[in-house]
Amino acid sequence: MSGTGRPTLAVVGATGAVGTVMLQILSQHADIWGEIRLIASPRSAGRKLAVRGEQVEVVALTEEAFDGVDVAMFDVPDELAAQWAPVAAAKGAVVVDNSGAFRMDPDVPLVVPEVNPHAARLRPRGIIANPNCTTLSMIVALGALHAEFGLRELVVSSYQAVSGAGREGIDTLRRQLKLVAGTELGTHPGDVRRAVGDDTGPFPEPVALNVVPWAGSLREDGWSSEEMKVRDETRKILGLAKLPVAVTCVRVPVVTTHSLTVHARFQAEVTVDGAREILATAPGVVLFDNPAAGEFPTPADVVGTDPTWVGRVRRALDDPTALELFVCGDNLRKGAALNTAQIAELIATEFV
Amino acid sequence: MSGTGRPTLAVVGATGAVGTVMLQILSQHADIWGEIRLIASPRSAGRKLAVRGEQVEVVALTEEAFDGVDVAMFDVPDELAAQWAPVAAAKGAVVVDNSGAFRMDPDVPLVVPEVNPHAARLRPRGIIANPNCTTLSMIVALGALHAEFGLRELVVSSYQAVSGAGREGIDTLRRQLKLVAGTELGTHPGDVRRAVGDDTGPFPEPVALNVVPWAGSLREDGWSSEEMKVRDETRKILGLAKLPVAVTCVRVPVVTTHSLTVHARFQAEVTVDGAREILATAPGVVLFDNPAAGEFPTPADVVGTDPTWVGRVRRALDDPTALELFVCGDNLRKGAALNTAQIAELIATEFV
Repeated sequence: MSGTGRPTLAVVGATGAVGTVMLQILSQHADIWGEIRLIASPRSAGRKLAVRGEQVEVVALTEEAFDGVDVAMFDVPDELAAQWAPVAAAKGAVVVDNSGAFRMDPDVPLVVPEVNPHAARLRPRGIIANPNCTTLSMIVALGALHAEFGLRELVVSSYQAVSGAGREGIDTLRRQLKLVAGTELGTHPGDVRRAVGDDTGPFPEPVALNVVPWAGSLREDGWSSEEMKVRDETRKILGLAKLPVAVTCVRVPVVTTHSLTVHARFQAEVTVDGAREILATAPGVVLFDNPAAGEFPTPADVVGTDPTWVGRVRRALDDPTALELFVCGDNLRKGAALNTAQIAELIATEFV
Repeated sequence: MSGTGRPTLAVVGATGAVGTVMLQILSQHADIWGEIRLIASPRSAGRKLAVRGEQVEVVALTEEAFDGVDVAMFDVPDELAAQWAPVAAAKGAVVVDNSGAFRMDPDVPLVVPEVNPHAARLRPRGIIANPNCTTLSMIVALGALHAEFGLRELVVSSYQAVSGAGREGIDTLRRQLKLVAGTELGTHPGDVRRAVGDDTGPFPEPVALNVVPWAGSLREDGWSSEEMKVRDETRKILGLAKLPVAVTCVRVPVVTTHSLTVHARFQAEVTVDGAREILATAPGVVLFDNPAAGEFPTPADVVGTDPTWVGRVRRALDDPTALELFVCGDNLRKGAALNTAQIAELIATEFV
């Protein structure tokens, strides 16, 4: 810990898309940290980035970079996290990791502060995992409903923003939009594909004027890794190891903010009024649901904000135990940087 | 009937977005018609449109316009259809109507030729209804699976193209795309909305760089009219009056071709191989499902084609009786003009 009595925080992966939002959030939140150390790949070392109104020099990722660090937030690719998080933990830091490397490790808690903050206390490896952005975009709302009604089944479809694939995803959509805007494209077989050519960036298909039913890599039986993450992580966070979860993940031409349709079945009858009451008072949730007044969340409104926005709350017409929801969450904020920062802040209270 | 022995066809609403595709389809299909008469509003009368390689003059919508007509395909707003379809029927024409005016009328069959062609025979009012485009984008695939496995429950989410809202929908997306392409918009609260201003056309929110969880008008308990159509029409076409159907309809920035995620539960266990075999041989369906080779349908590939494309076929991991599918269909072709033309062609065989 630094001489000020406040814990020292390291931000590993400070120069990435999520890292950038992380530094914004640290600058906006109550300043509870002593030193904030910025760590990135050796080629970024020496760059200066703004945090808390000061320019801070980025240092290279080495074992020594974790000297005196109390809490280390990681946002780096899975294989780098797998290698370096244990190094930081061995040096005494509590690691909060946003990669997929540790999320399903039984000795690593998967934490959403509004839903299962207690889980952060038991961390035998000194590592806490941050959930995937798609799971995080809905889990705060679902956690609140589960606490009251008891979740029994989920059917989820995603409308995922391109920034889920990082800066390259954003750049790809922007390049493609320039090629299709001002044209008559989108009404003839293959015309968008011909205009975009092979420049599909991190996506398997053009994403401008299109939707692409694929995110991540191929898992068994035709499932995508993103779909498996939503299922497995939802079960782990809610502590429902056998919850039936059916997911289809689809990429849409939105820059930032994931949306999801949710069909949620509960233990007993639910009412829309009851669900609305819970959502209206749940921490981290905004209920925005008045279609008569044109009110329902969309990414254009939600981007840049912290909460999970919920609208289109309906009871299933043919099943009094099920609710339909439309949920939006900024995938770079609550979906990544914000939740990581919230976990780090939760840990910081242990140092007081 | 005209002197040639072939039935006379009227196309009512020939100048609209669907009417335009209707004339293309009539020009491409086997030429079974005698006269093809084009009918539209009085302000379009006198215009000439190409059909079967000839320029045909549009006549105004009057009672006399139906003199000698055997089959009349209607694509006009609900209130015009409600007024004029009975007029055409009273003059002896079999009406195939693509509006919402008659779909749930118990004396009007709702027909998809691949699924329930027999229903077209019993038409006490002389009117046959064509389903809504969103229902049509999935129903051929679902009908084939239902025939084999027996459908027990559906949970559906849509990714609907802007042309579902007609030419105005297409023009609105194209105007908005010009405003957002080449910018850094989409990462700050409200930035897309400010750029687009109040110019949201037929949509309640900006549709470029956004998804909008609303289609149609407000029904009871927060449901949209589009969602109720998908539920009610699916039940009527499949003859399953009590089928539980949960639907959320969402507009996406795609010009043409609706996509849907489908969670379908059946009477007994299903296998992916069994489902694939049915889909691979079902008339009007293309199975395009090999994620390892990057094969799954997207609107960019499907637009302008006739079939229902199905990919991402998976068995639910937690329910051996349920399948997950991603389905795409051109909402102006199979979703509107093509199915209407197929019904008309089915009726035409009665005149041989």
